[in-house]
Amino acid sequence: MRKDPVTGRWVSITTNRPKRPSDFIRTPVVPQSANGACQFCLGHEAETPPEILAYRENGNGHWSLRVVPNKFPALRVEGMLDRAGEGLYDQMTGIGAHEVIIESPDHKLSLADLTEKQVHDIFWAFRDRILDLRRDTRLKFILLFKNHGEAAGASVEHTHSQLIALPVVPIRVREELDGARHYYAFKERCVFCDMVRQDSRDGARVILETDEILVMAPYAPRFPFETWVLPRAHSSHFETAQPSVIQSLAWAMRATIRKMEKVLERPAYNFVIHTAPVQEAPLEHYHWHLEIIPRLTRVAGFEWGAGFYINPTPPEEAAQFLRDAGL
Amino acid sequence: MRKDPVTGRWVSITTNRPKRPSDFIRTPVVPQSANGACQFCLGHEAETPPEILAYRENGNGHWSLRVVPNKFPALRVEGMLDRAGEGLYDQMTGIGAHEVIIESPDHKLSLADLTEKQVHDIFWAFRDRILDLRRDTRLKFILLFKNHGEAAGASVEHTHSQLIALPVVPIRVREELDGARHYYAFKERCVFCDMVRQDSRDGARVILETDEILVMAPYAPRFPFETWVLPRAHSSHFETAQPSVIQSLAWAMRATIRKMEKVLERPAYNFVIHTAPVQEAPLEHYHWHLEIIPRLTRVAGFEWGAGFYINPTPPEEAAQFLRDAGL
Repeated sequence: MRKDPVTGRWVSITTNRPKRPSDFIRTPVVPQSANGACQFCLGHEAETPPEILAYRENGNGHWSLRVVPNKFPALRVEGMLDRAGEGLYDQMTGIGAHEVIIESPDHKLSLADLTEKQVHDIFWAFRDRILDLRRDTRLKFILLFKNHGEAAGASVEHTHSQLIALPVVPIRVREELDGARHYYAFKERCVFCDMVRQDSRDGARVILETDEILVMAPYAPRFPFETWVLPRAHSSHFETAQPSVIQSLAWAMRATIRKMEKVLERPAYNFVIHTAPVQEAPLEHYHWHLEIIPRLTRVAGFEWGAGFYINPTPPEEAAQFLRDAGL
Repeated sequence: MRKDPVTGRWVSITTNRPKRPSDFIRTPVVPQSANGACQFCLGHEAETPPEILAYRENGNGHWSLRVVPNKFPALRVEGMLDRAGEGLYDQMTGIGAHEVIIESPDHKLSLADLTEKQVHDIFWAFRDRILDLRRDTRLKFILLFKNHGEAAGASVEHTHSQLIALPVVPIRVREELDGARHYYAFKERCVFCDMVRQDSRDGARVILETDEILVMAPYAPRFPFETWVLPRAHSSHFETAQPSVIQSLAWAMRATIRKMEKVLERPAYNFVIHTAPVQEAPLEHYHWHLEIIPRLTRVAGFEWGAGFYINPTPPEEAAQFLRDAGL
């Protein structure tokens, strides 16, 4: 059993009979034709709510990336931030934002099929949107994530990611912030910086590295082939990343997803950016990063119910499979 | 948005366009014939590891419930409990137990198809196994759960539940224990007792009640039709429940699952018992309970990644559907 050094979560790693890529039952996410019916495709701009942001290419003049409000938003910016009690219970109005980042005018399926420039623009758009939204001081946390494939919760096939701005800090992020603060209080070092240093030197869990970015299997992963992407330099807020870091992140993400698609046969996956609450000053104890989870197994009752995970693939084996796969 | 009063987790509840039972895409869990190939069926006892516990009926002499070790256990009792560091990381040997409770000699599919006596025996077996295992003081927490249907992670069809005994307290349970302790420190009342009182009086989220048990939709459910089963009387440890409480729990659980199978068309589901760590003395701030989660939706990236949930069914609506369904 291994302990996540940030949250203290214990995970059981199966070492007898570990599961290799071919042991998982997989449903490859394969491209379908849009048949002109996709609201995210070029020429269908009128079918989405009015766009918030668009990047255009110099050559042809049409958009290469668009950000639009979600048609069925979980939260809205309109209204007052009201908190109220109901006996012992507490509620508040769902003030926030829910946006969709359309990553390409083409009905392509995966981030791996995009050019490096297109992948760069996704992360640049994330940064642009945070810098805009954080001016609304009611918004405390901005969640950036991608659901790829039906098994990962994607309801639209056209390649896209999402943004949810929240008036609260979600519980898993708070747990990470608290854990990282405890570690810092004791060691006077950032736990993520320590991980980057130790794993980069040790190498067994490294998937790929650049001067700016480390891609690794975490020490105590909940899921087979769970992968973390961390900037080498300490930084608590994703939106303050230097252009060179975003550039390197884009290259590393595209390479990592391409490796996953080779090794795991185009799996459904999720990624989420973990970053510090937007209204906070830079934090010495927290370090933004991105977590990728391929959806290879069904999550069982005790994992939901108790937060105890059994992972049939040791991270050192997962890292080796991904490291050995071509770009 | 609503806050879970125990853990502080915020959940967004959709009130415009709420999802009703018919809005979920469901794959009913329907009984298949065992074809003599099921190791859990009567007559196949030699195919499981040697039994740990069995209940027998007076009439025919054969077993009505068996407990056997899991063939591929995640943890084992053999060995030493060793803890060690690896640089900044921590690990320990996976000392524990992993057992299967075979709930019936027949290849039946659901708890709802069992008699009340059979359901009673499941919970009685849970109690018996905890009372035995807790004598090994290395074991800190005993997880009791059921995965029903493939979508809920069940790999064997024959109706069964599972036990995992752990040398640590899982993170979600620890989070609940901490939250309940904070509430108690401030109010000098158990938060679960407060919920039982308020919801029983209010009624809007009640699914069914007996003198001993309250079945309700929680105030801030993560999932549509998430259901909690609580004893009315304060008690931190499931294994100290009085026989009359176990009797009432069995009746209430069977009735609740039967209602769910009617309203949601035989859904896949999980249940997990949340109870205090076995080596602890009775706790004034914690209250054992059981959580049932029908698997109606795919869990998306941000839910995994951040612990923020969007639930498309208000619990008051879910409770009404289940309350109105016959037993």
